[in-house]
Amino acid sequence: MELGPPGGAGPAEPGPRLRGLRGDDRAASAAWLSEASAGRRAPSVAAVLPAGGSGERMGVPTPKQFCPVLERPLISYTLQALERVCWIKDIVVAVTGENMEVMKGIVQRYQHKRISLVEAGVTRHRSIFNGLKALAEDQPNSKLCRPEVVIIHDAVRPFVEEDVLLKVAIAAKEHGAAGAIRPLVSTVISPSADGCLDHSLERTSHRASEMPQAFLFDVIYEAYQQCSDYDLEFGTECLQLALKYCHTKAKLVEGSPDLWKVTYKRDLYAAESIIKERISQQICILMDAKEDEEHVGRCLEEMLKKELNHVKVTSGALCHAGRDLQQIILEQCYNFVCVNVMTSDFEETRKLLNALEESNLSILYPVVVISVHFLDYKLVPFGQKMEHLMQIKEFAKEVKKRNILLCGLLIYYPQLWRQDMRTLEVRVYVRPHTTQPAYCC
Amino acid sequence: MELGPPGGAGPAEPGPRLRGLRGDDRAASAAWLSEASAGRRAPSVAAVLPAGGSGERMGVPTPKQFCPVLERPLISYTLQALERVCWIKDIVVAVTGENMEVMKGIVQRYQHKRISLVEAGVTRHRSIFNGLKALAEDQPNSKLCRPEVVIIHDAVRPFVEEDVLLKVAIAAKEHGAAGAIRPLVSTVISPSADGCLDHSLERTSHRASEMPQAFLFDVIYEAYQQCSDYDLEFGTECLQLALKYCHTKAKLVEGSPDLWKVTYKRDLYAAESIIKERISQQICILMDAKEDEEHVGRCLEEMLKKELNHVKVTSGALCHAGRDLQQIILEQCYNFVCVNVMTSDFEETRKLLNALEESNLSILYPVVVISVHFLDYKLVPFGQKMEHLMQIKEFAKEVKKRNILLCGLLIYYPQLWRQDMRTLEVRVYVRPHTTQPAYCC
Repeated sequence: MELGPPGGAGPAEPGPRLRGLRGDDRAASAAWLSEASAGRRAPSVAAVLPAGGSGERMGVPTPKQFCPVLERPLISYTLQALERVCWIKDIVVAVTGENMEVMKGIVQRYQHKRISLVEAGVTRHRSIFNGLKALAEDQPNSKLCRPEVVIIHDAVRPFVEEDVLLKVAIAAKEHGAAGAIRPLVSTVISPSADGCLDHSLERTSHRASEMPQAFLFDVIYEAYQQCSDYDLEFGTECLQLALKYCHTKAKLVEGSPDLWKVTYKRDLYAAESIIKERISQQICILMDAKEDEEHVGRCLEEMLKKELNHVKVTSGALCHAGRDLQQIILEQCYNFVCVNVMTSDFEETRKLLNALEESNLSILYPVVVISVHFLDYKLVPFGQKMEHLMQIKEFAKEVKKRNILLCGLLIYYPQLWRQDMRTLEVRVYVRPHTTQPAYCC
Repeated sequence: MELGPPGGAGPAEPGPRLRGLRGDDRAASAAWLSEASAGRRAPSVAAVLPAGGSGERMGVPTPKQFCPVLERPLISYTLQALERVCWIKDIVVAVTGENMEVMKGIVQRYQHKRISLVEAGVTRHRSIFNGLKALAEDQPNSKLCRPEVVIIHDAVRPFVEEDVLLKVAIAAKEHGAAGAIRPLVSTVISPSADGCLDHSLERTSHRASEMPQAFLFDVIYEAYQQCSDYDLEFGTECLQLALKYCHTKAKLVEGSPDLWKVTYKRDLYAAESIIKERISQQICILMDAKEDEEHVGRCLEEMLKKELNHVKVTSGALCHAGRDLQQIILEQCYNFVCVNVMTSDFEETRKLLNALEESNLSILYPVVVISVHFLDYKLVPFGQKMEHLMQIKEFAKEVKKRNILLCGLLIYYPQLWRQDMRTLEVRVYVRPHTTQPAYCC
């Protein structure tokens, strides 16, 4: 077990992904990332996700981690949040035998990467222990590597950010254990045996222990190996096991409100609304030709990034960009701008619409497509302009029935404009998340 | 101070409003209600609502109790939940000076009853104390009566049910103090001074203290009069004040998950979804004539009650039912069946549509109106039938632009059917709350 300091921790600029970290954290993170990018001395990190719960508090028959949010199981959002973090090498999910096939289906359908499934135990602690065993390299046929640091997270906390994952991982490397905390929302009390108030706890001197938590693998694995059946059956807190069995005092890391655990039915509603809000902040720009990506695509991207959080640009005819597009649709992007500079027909738009229709993405939430065409003013006769207009209107009418809102923008420009595509100005207005986004180009 | 037992507590059937109470609770509640209905010896109950908070955790400039949920301020839902409980005589709301006019506007606009406004203090405890002072009858010009029991609730817990209000009020009368509790969702920990884990609390032996709470007025008023400035500034728990200053051990009452406090932005999303779900469970039947209320109205009501939670019937031409209708619209009923037996024109439907349009109810959420017309088969010539059909279609087209979905049902029946309206069979299917309700008659 190597417990050395993160090494070379200077006051380097950690880049945009570390916004929110300050001071020592920032220096440590910068070091961590530079190690990771240099491919040397970077500690290996894996994650364990216990997902064997029955969700009895939710009041619905489906375990909460499998409850659909905008038609996609909650756990899939959590896996997406973890697999976006490139320095988490393996994600071990503990699922009950009866849900194993369901889980395999989810991994396949949403193309999750770096996932290993293990059988859950009857309690949360036993599930985590099974996940750790799979990583310990003492199991036969295991293809997993024993990591230096292991992150434990909940399947029902889908909004975890890289920021807090990094903070707990760094703190775990230094302290042996670390966990996210939040201020208490309600006062905590201790009842007496007769159901009356015995005493109430001072709110300011207590915190809610949340997830993610991270540990040096050897610390938490030893704690689980040593801990009693009582702890495995009735315990809830991994930090407590590390303290009790390995005398490791966990470092506590302040988490964001978004870390909350989906517990009740109302939390599913909240999760859905947060995802919808994110959807309205996410747009994909599809270019018809690679060479235009630099002109129009990047220019559009720059402008849109001022107003939206996630802007993705992909280029080349859709037949080539097909896999990219499939992935974008799978990640539930609901807003598309399809820019055509090279072609004057609507073939690319039609392909996009077909792909969207096949994906069933628009079943619960409308998909917005803006089809932009640049056409040379002099080369296109009047009759053809009218034809273009009618075609796009016809498309729009057709796909609206399937909840896809198509808007056409035909830009007839003189040849010389082509030289200066940067004059193009696109403004996107996104209405509040409760209604569908409205675009004005 | 009269502390006697609730009196005459027999195993009487408490009626539907007490579903959920059991054993001793049920007996006590039955006694309480029979006292209340007999108008004697029933303890007088008032409520105090501190609403002076700034909502800093929400991350929005509007204090959370004034945040709009489906265009209506959150606090208005809470007031509605309290004023529906007939045995709460007065509701005292503590609001900051700067929000006093806003609050007056809310009370007026949503026609809240039995509300008194007092000035909030700088902390939650000071606001509650101000509310209690107003009830103590020792203020000049106060029109309020000193109650025997006072309920303290939060303005940002809009889903409180009569059931739990009754439980805490009864328990307060018996024990002097009582409060709703919930199991802990997260483990609670105590950090050490260096930001590390000191120890974690056993989750099963602690509870989250929620609202409502209730007290014998004299107990809590004395506690507030005696308590230190430190308690008034930094304390959060009223039950603790009753324990510390009056040695009154509060009875703890298990509450439902719906008691949760709207704290973060995601809670507003959750509240909106819960309200939407309730909306899809609420319908108003408008009859064109009083005499038909017994025939069709009650029959329809009976059938709909099997599938929906809230069915309200009102009758008489809309010009008479106007005030009723205004109230129903104010309570955010989004589903209407307008039954016409006496009249063959669409005047009543048009009046309902006008009232709905004026209310702006449909701005964020579609209103569904089913206009049902019973017309004598023989008396109506073919041309007139077609005219009816076209008229209702025209209406539907017009109001759809304003998010009102009108569906017409013209029932041409032979005269003899009139005798047996009970054969009418109406089935209502309500789709999940994320989409608008769909009706099939």
